[in-house]
Formats: sequence, structure tokens, C-alpha cells
Amino acid sequence: MSETDITSLVTGIAQRALETSRQLATLGTEDKNRALRAIADRLEDPALTKTVLNANQKDLDAGIAAGLSDAMVDRLRLTPDRMLGMAQGVREVAGLPDPVGTCLEETTHRTGFILRKIRVPIGVIGIIYESRPNVTIDCAVLCLKSGNATILRGGKEAFNTNSALMGLIQDALAEAGLPPDAVQLIPTTDRAAMEALLQADQYVHCLIPRGGEGLIRMVSEKARMPVIKHYKGLCHVYVHEDADPSMATDILLNAKCQRPGVCNAAETLLVDTTLLETWFEEAARALHEHGVELRLDSPAATAIGDTLPWHPATNEDFDTEYLDKILSVKTVSGPKEAIDFINAHGSGHSEAIVTRDDAVAHAFLNGVDAAAVYWNVSTRFTDGYEFGLGAEIGISTDKLHARGPMGLNELTSYKFVATGTGQIR
Amino acid sequence: MSETDITSLVTGIAQRALETSRQLATLGTEDKNRALRAIADRLEDPALTKTVLNANQKDLDAGIAAGLSDAMVDRLRLTPDRMLGMAQGVREVAGLPDPVGTCLEETTHRTGFILRKIRVPIGVIGIIYESRPNVTIDCAVLCLKSGNATILRGGKEAFNTNSALMGLIQDALAEAGLPPDAVQLIPTTDRAAMEALLQADQYVHCLIPRGGEGLIRMVSEKARMPVIKHYKGLCHVYVHEDADPSMATDILLNAKCQRPGVCNAAETLLVDTTLLETWFEEAARALHEHGVELRLDSPAATAIGDTLPWHPATNEDFDTEYLDKILSVKTVSGPKEAIDFINAHGSGHSEAIVTRDDAVAHAFLNGVDAAAVYWNVSTRFTDGYEFGLGAEIGISTDKLHARGPMGLNELTSYKFVATGTGQIR
Repeated sequence: MSETDITSLVTGIAQRALETSRQLATLGTEDKNRALRAIADRLEDPALTKTVLNANQKDLDAGIAAGLSDAMVDRLRLTPDRMLGMAQGVREVAGLPDPVGTCLEETTHRTGFILRKIRVPIGVIGIIYESRPNVTIDCAVLCLKSGNATILRGGKEAFNTNSALMGLIQDALAEAGLPPDAVQLIPTTDRAAMEALLQADQYVHCLIPRGGEGLIRMVSEKARMPVIKHYKGLCHVYVHEDADPSMATDILLNAKCQRPGVCNAAETLLVDTTLLETWFEEAARALHEHGVELRLDSPAATAIGDTLPWHPATNEDFDTEYLDKILSVKTVSGPKEAIDFINAHGSGHSEAIVTRDDAVAHAFLNGVDAAAVYWNVSTRFTDGYEFGLGAEIGISTDKLHARGPMGLNELTSYKFVATGTGQIR
Repeated sequence: MSETDITSLVTGIAQRALETSRQLATLGTEDKNRALRAIADRLEDPALTKTVLNANQKDLDAGIAAGLSDAMVDRLRLTPDRMLGMAQGVREVAGLPDPVGTCLEETTHRTGFILRKIRVPIGVIGIIYESRPNVTIDCAVLCLKSGNATILRGGKEAFNTNSALMGLIQDALAEAGLPPDAVQLIPTTDRAAMEALLQADQYVHCLIPRGGEGLIRMVSEKARMPVIKHYKGLCHVYVHEDADPSMATDILLNAKCQRPGVCNAAETLLVDTTLLETWFEEAARALHEHGVELRLDSPAATAIGDTLPWHPATNEDFDTEYLDKILSVKTVSGPKEAIDFINAHGSGHSEAIVTRDDAVAHAFLNGVDAAAVYWNVSTRFTDGYEFGLGAEIGISTDKLHARGPMGLNELTSYKFVATGTGQIR
């Protein structure tokens, strides 16, 4: 296809999404849930599952032949179990309360009309993602439940899988009597299609890129519509001199080691100078025993000496999201330096302090600019399920519209509805 | 100054704004109100007022010499009365509740820690505006009260006035003990400064353009950070066949004539075919008597015939925000056509239906995609003061973050604050 053809293809998709979004906005909860259950049924159907797995095998073969890394291949792979897991996730979303139509505020105007602020869908949401095909189902389902029309643009590596999943979604929509354009997949991974989508602000209300930092940065720079960004998690644990020592060790180990590859894992320890010869020596030993590689600034290195293996921390270390069993350690003179360091090096995701001092804790909770701040709690809790949202489409590191875990409510906007008896101004 | 110098000047301003925003986020309400009252005091001080008015006279002289329209010159002009009005506005903002620190939600996690969702400032807000110097005070004050650092970039025509007002704000900040970089004006109207600001997404969290459609479009296309858009108001009144006739006329006259130059005034009447020979004939006469020029589609024109003067409506009319005593009239076959027409031609601002039929009204209120929808109420109420926000920085036609009138709450974000006793996952 020529670039012009691709542009008009994508514009057509976006235009139909906008038209459909108006129908979706007026659907009842049961209509949406019926479609969700139909999707889940199909994800559990052995024959249909087989079709998807065959398509997935094509992508896997091509990916392996193209030399994709093992981690990439694993992300791409669907299995019968993973598909049952996806179906389970869809059923859970069907069971969540419908955010649309909720009255957020109600007042009576002095002239007597009633003014309500009502949750409504955003409209058309574009999801731009890379190699994980489960995003196709997860995002389509969350957007559908919140009454939005979805345009999916998946990665090249997962194209056959995504197309098979989309066929399954389309059948489910038809069975449930929902408009087929409620969820659309851009049927080409040509770059021109991405460009056209980024320009379609007349039809698309918001983009959510799901993937690496490069993808997110490209989308935010080029998109004309709002972009909800989910950047990296460069999280700190600050151990204040008045911390309970064993609590500090437990929280640090949990934040670093329980699942090092996720965005709410800790990457840097900030430790008060006064703790170097006491608590820190023991904590470093525990980290080492848990297989954590230590990258130490010079006071911390002096404290450890040759009792444990370590590497010197470079400036770059303090700006790196390892997603691995590596911890950088920065010594600070106290809370003020810790807060400033976090605001300079953190990614605004999740930040923890361990202390018994109320005033210090409050200064930290107020002064640190992040989506989630923790006092005597591990950073690992920043998550839609843990925060009671029921499901999440991601964790926003933006400050507008949504911050932190985004659930169904965060996929909505609102409108003001006035009902009166002839009021004029 | 060279372009490089201007870029580093603007980057420096943005960087200092970000640093200052962290201080502002932790200020108490009284600190902020003290600064606001100090600004109001200065706007009421005859000697200081004189300095501002002298600067304004320079701008007016230059503007008139450059051939600005009368409307532009009027927008640019400050008077002692207008300055007292600004001071009064500042005192009102000081009297409003502080949004920062409000707890929006509180839950206890199953492990026992308390999770609170707390309102916090957005951080750094850039305001890009044209010739109205009162925006300098209005926006600075609303951003300050909500704990944000502000970067102002005003129009060339008002540069002397804006600089004088900024001097007054700076003195007030100093007197109140607030950091001077809480409010900064970009000290050049060079285009390169605007470009640099649009790129400074590392430091600036959000831009609010205040001005014409061209400015807003340019800012949204080029900015790397989120932009809150306040586009035009192309508002409709739909008179359904079951409308109370005199209520319909009252609402239509009010929406069109009470203040035709504002964004919540009606521009188009949608009328059911069945009303053409009855209600519409009388309403058209009333509009004519109120000095409204009628632009009629062909069924409406046939109904009026030569009983009143009118012009034929072109396609362009239905996409035009007149901001004047002109009304386009479109005949529709019923609610479905009215809703579709509004969704195709409206600007998502304010839309009204007049009817006694509950089911039709609800279909309209649900189906029309706009910030404010009205049933038997004039569109003229879409306004921060009327909606009880106390003040407004504008009326958002966006669907993300804020929709409709934006007050202090809409100038905030939130953070999750967890306080526990050593919880780990």
C-alpha cells in the first residue's frame, strides 16, 4: 500500500471509532459485560485457542529466525495456560463496577436547576504497544468496559497473533450485538500507519503507549492528542537514622528482591551517614546473601571495605532502572538531601522512607514528588490490584488526568448535566 | 539575543520553576494567601497603579500606531477601575478553600497500611496568552493558590504592561516571604522563546494557552507536554416538538442574546420540523425584534417566507462561532438527527434541549458529547462561578484531566500516600 492509502485507511478506522464511541457511551452495563463474557468464552474454547496458538507459532518461528532475544520470545509466546489466564482476567473485568454514569457531584444552582457531574467514557483511546500479545485483550477489555472505542496498534513481531485475537474479539462483539468497530486493530505495522494515528487528533482523544522508554518518548513527541505516559520506575528506599533496623532491612529486601524486574522495585538505597557503620553493614550482608550486586558511593564503600564484594557507583548508576538484582547506594546527610536526591533522580513512581520520626516522615511524604510515597511500607505495593482498582491498564508517571495505577475510573472523563425548569441567566 | 541565548534563558526559567514548585507544594494555605493579599494591596495602591497604567499607555500608543483594531485596543487597556476589579478577584481567590492536601479517598490495605489519595499541585504550569494583560494576574493567582509555579508568556502588544504587573507580583512575593520564582514572566516575546518553552517538557508539566483558535492549535501541535485546550464554543439549542413554547423562546433568547460575545452563547437553533409553522414563526419574530440576524436552512426559510428578513444558511454557517447577534437555524426530523448534528458540528462545549419528554431529554443528555448538557436550562450557565468553583482559569473542551469550567481543583494532581508499620509484599 502507498503511504496515502495507509493514511486514509487509518483515518477511516479513527473516524469509525469516533462514531462508534457515541454508541458505546450510551450502552448499559449488561451489554458491555455480555461482550466481555463472550470474549472470555472464546479464550477458553479449545478450537479457537488452537487457531490463536497456531498464529502465535508463526510469529514465534519468525521471531526466532530473526534472532529475537529469549526474553522477547518469551514475551511473545502464548500458551493454553496464558490464554486461560487472559480469560480469567476478562471475567474479572466483567465483574467490576461500571464507572460510566456514576454521579461524582450534585448541587442545586441558586436558580433551582440541578447540576450533576457524571462520569462518561473518554471516547476513542489508541493503544500503541510492542511485543506482548496479551495487551490486545487486556486493553481492549478495559476500554470496552469503560465505554471507550479502542484502536490497537501492536508490534510487528506479534502481528499474526494480534490479528487472530482480534478475530476472536470481533466475533464476540457480533454475538453480543455490539458494534464491530468498538475494537479495531490497525491491519498493518507499516510506519506510515503509526504516523497517521499520531496525527488523528480530530478523532482520537488519547493515546496510551505500552512499552519501552523509546516508544513512549516517540509517541509523546509526535502525537497531537494527549498521551498518558507510563515511564520507567526508578524507585528509592530511604533509611533514616531513626529507622527500626530490622524493619528497614525487611522493606529494603522486599523492595529490591521480591520481583526485581518490575517498575515498583527499588533501584537505589539512600542511607543516612550515621547508619553506615551499624545498620548498613548488616543490611549489605543480607542483600549480598540474597544475590544482590552492590554499587556503592564512596562513604558506603569505605564502610564495607573488603568485608563484601561491591562495585563503585558511577553517576549513571543513580539514573539507571536496573530491573535486576543490582542496588546502587547513596549516602546522605539527612532527610533534606534524600528528598532533593529523589526529586532529581527518581522517575516519580514509588518512593519509600523508613523512620520512626513522624516529622521527618511527613516532610518526606510531602516533599517527594512521586505518584506513590510510602512510610514504613515497601514500594512493591504500587499496583492497580493492590490499590483496590480491580485491574490496571498501567501506572501513570504523568501528573495530568491520572497518576499512579490507572483502572477503569481513570479511563473515563465527565460531563456536567443540568436539569431545570426554564432557568435563564 | 541569539536563539541559543534565548533557549538557555527559557530553560533556566523552567528549571528554576521546577525547583520552586517543590517548595510551593509544601507551603501552608496562610503563606499562599498572604502573598495573594499582598498582590491585591498593590493593585489597589494608587502610586503602584500609576506605574502599571503608564506602562499600559506605552503599549496602547504602540498598538494604536501599529493599527490594532478597536476591539484589540480595548482588550489591551487597563483602567483604575479594571485594576480594582483585578484586586477584588485576587481577594476572592484568597478566600477560596485551598485544594492542596485534601484527602480524596482513604482505604486500609489488607496488610494494615493506610492508603490515602491526596490532592497535590500539578507542579509547573505554563500560560501562553495574547493581548489581555489581566490574564497575567488571574492566572498567576489561581496557579499560586493551587501551589503551582507559573511561567507566563504574554503577547507582544502587552509586553510593557505585563512586565509592570510582574514587578508588582514579585514585590508581593518577596513581602510574603515566598520564593521569587513562583511566578515568572518570559522577558522576551521573541518566537524562539515560545519554541523553547514548548520543548521544555523536562521541567514544565502542562501548558494552558489562552487566546484564539490559531494560538491553541499551534501550541497543541508543537508542545511536548500536555496542553489543556479551551477551544471555541459552538453551542446549540434544540427545541423538541414537545417543548413548552414560551420556555423554549425564553431559553433561546437568553442563550443567544444575553451576551452574544461569549463562548457559552448559542450559535445554532435546531428545531423539529413539526414546530416550523407554529412555535418557530413566533420565536423567529422575537429573535428579530431582539436584533438577531437569522440564517435559515431551506425548510425554516419556507416557513418564514417574506414575513421577516433572513439569509440562507450555508454549510459554513453551521460550523461558525459568530460571537455576535447572528443565529443559524437547522430543521431536524427529531432527537436522533439533532444529537447527530450536534456531535458533528458542536465544539463539545454547551448544548441544550427544551422538551417536556423525559425519555427524549435523557437520550439527548446521554447522547450529546459535550462538557455541559442542559435540559430546559440556558447554555449561558457554563461558567466557573455559576458552577460553584469560585473562579475559573478557563473552560476546557478537552476530555482528559479537566472538562468544562476549570477552577482550583482542576489545577491539581494527586499522589498516593501509604503509611504503615513495616508491610512488605
